[in-house]
Amino acid sequence: MILLETTCSSVPAPDDAIRAAIQRRLDGKTKPPGSLGRLEELACAVGAIQGTASPSVREKAVVIMAADHGVAEEGVSAYPQAVTAQMVANFAAGGAAVNVLARHAGARVVVADLGVKAPLAGLAGVRDLRVGAGTRNLARGPAMRRDEAVLALERGIALAGELAGQGVQVLAIGEMGIGNTTAASALAAAYTGSAPAAVTGRGTGVDDVVHSRKVEVVARALAASPPDPADPLGTLAALGGFEIAGLAGVVLGAAARRVPVVVDGFIASAAALAAVRLAPRCAGALLAAHRSAERGHGAVLEALGKRPLLELDLRLGEGTGAVLALHLLEAAVRVLDEMATFESAGVSGASR
Amino acid sequence: MILLETTCSSVPAPDDAIRAAIQRRLDGKTKPPGSLGRLEELACAVGAIQGTASPSVREKAVVIMAADHGVAEEGVSAYPQAVTAQMVANFAAGGAAVNVLARHAGARVVVADLGVKAPLAGLAGVRDLRVGAGTRNLARGPAMRRDEAVLALERGIALAGELAGQGVQVLAIGEMGIGNTTAASALAAAYTGSAPAAVTGRGTGVDDVVHSRKVEVVARALAASPPDPADPLGTLAALGGFEIAGLAGVVLGAAARRVPVVVDGFIASAAALAAVRLAPRCAGALLAAHRSAERGHGAVLEALGKRPLLELDLRLGEGTGAVLALHLLEAAVRVLDEMATFESAGVSGASR
Repeated sequence: MILLETTCSSVPAPDDAIRAAIQRRLDGKTKPPGSLGRLEELACAVGAIQGTASPSVREKAVVIMAADHGVAEEGVSAYPQAVTAQMVANFAAGGAAVNVLARHAGARVVVADLGVKAPLAGLAGVRDLRVGAGTRNLARGPAMRRDEAVLALERGIALAGELAGQGVQVLAIGEMGIGNTTAASALAAAYTGSAPAAVTGRGTGVDDVVHSRKVEVVARALAASPPDPADPLGTLAALGGFEIAGLAGVVLGAAARRVPVVVDGFIASAAALAAVRLAPRCAGALLAAHRSAERGHGAVLEALGKRPLLELDLRLGEGTGAVLALHLLEAAVRVLDEMATFESAGVSGASR
Repeated sequence: MILLETTCSSVPAPDDAIRAAIQRRLDGKTKPPGSLGRLEELACAVGAIQGTASPSVREKAVVIMAADHGVAEEGVSAYPQAVTAQMVANFAAGGAAVNVLARHAGARVVVADLGVKAPLAGLAGVRDLRVGAGTRNLARGPAMRRDEAVLALERGIALAGELAGQGVQVLAIGEMGIGNTTAASALAAAYTGSAPAAVTGRGTGVDDVVHSRKVEVVARALAASPPDPADPLGTLAALGGFEIAGLAGVVLGAAARRVPVVVDGFIASAAALAAVRLAPRCAGALLAAHRSAERGHGAVLEALGKRPLLELDLRLGEGTGAVLALHLLEAAVRVLDEMATFESAGVSGASR
């Protein structure tokens, strides 16, 4: 609990003076002012988060956290629970979508087991950060005890700190866990005040019957563990999951170390929102990668105050959208570093 | 004229059987069906255009065509006309935004002078495809003679053919030319039937007074050269520019060689629309990179029937948006090539 508390209290605000200095540098580049739109915003944001007028995102990593969910027993997914562990093995073998996209982006893949049900017994390339063998069924009561949520958060904080210490300059976050869109919907409803039906979607692709059941499960969860706005940690414990709490910890740990966090889709965004409820200043370190096709993501993005960079109808999770967006961050930083100025290139300025 | 005619008549349609075969392959990958959204569409589209179930976009190039515009004398730009030539020198030296983003995307930069006013006298790295020393003022009569437009088109066709022959697998297109948003607005109005005010924006960033003048100039151009829907070539000659006609030629030449064309913003899209009016089937080879902040781009995208991949408020031109989007094409193709299947990874399928 001490690590969580000290981390939450040490998150800095982005540096607005640096943001302004970077914008001035961009205004000297050979282009009409502002004409690179959101790339210019991104260069400024990365610098303001990193606390340097010479930002860099050369060293990139994506953290994928996996865990199982007791709520899967309610039949809320199109896939059997065994898929969580199978996909972790797929990540470790380099065959999943996020592996392909991370190779393309030049990002290191860090896979962590926060509590997959089936034992993964020393699978090479998977970090053992296990808090338990899956959460309890959140429809019937709290998914985690408070101390379990704190442990998952602190394991995420420690991992982010470790990666920052190794020189990682930007972190993408993603997740895997059969049943975790249901947990994310419950968290989204609790943290944003939205109705369950407004933030509960089709996840991996469930049909109308299962979708109705998911909405009802979320409503039951909120009734079983009524959210207290003054206790965001209690809400995370009651309605979240080990990997969601772990990612919230990664957000906190990265923000405290001035490492920008590129947030993936609905579930990762729900984790980021939990982090923001625990330490509001960490919102300054977040960049929303994309708008997921999953219902509910819009409400979470709005609560985070973030406009996503990409709208590609992705709904896979794993960090796939976050890793795709890394290319844009790197493009923004390279523009700042490499573009000629009006002066250096001998180009005339605006005639007004 | 013979090269233009034979090219227009030889543009193939995308191969729908290949599109379906690629979608089947994607459905076997370890992800819920369709969950990679537009990346899946892209992989299918690139394969259908290239005519192969094993598409590749490893060899990438961006063609940037530059020319001057007689209409600049109407005072429609925030920058002096000399900037066209200065920016061509900047492209040749590698200092412009598109150079930075092309390096980031791993794309070769091909700069062509289609008719810059100031002589560029053998600037290294600039292809001499000059048709004249800038167009005439389209507000007072046709910007080009028909034979000049045909020459520019055929130089574009030849360049695309040459690049395809060198193994280029995807082409991005961009432009530079002070005054060319006015020409593009006139073309957009003529080809889509939109009112001048609906398709005339602020270009490099003109103020209200200059913007009103641009709208009035576009209206005068349409009055001076009333567009005939049966004569798209005449419209292109009257209202376009050398670089716009050249890029329309690149689109035709690439489409004829089954090379996908990633279209940049407003001006490049107007060029692509000219190509589609000349040979409707070439629309099948186009991918819209982004939605520009320039007013009028939406109407042109709609006429092309394209939904852009990125919405980043870019309004720079040069091919910057197109080059940024190449990353997504490559990501899509790599997913198709490199992702594990349910079978190969031992992952269970949906339980329904």
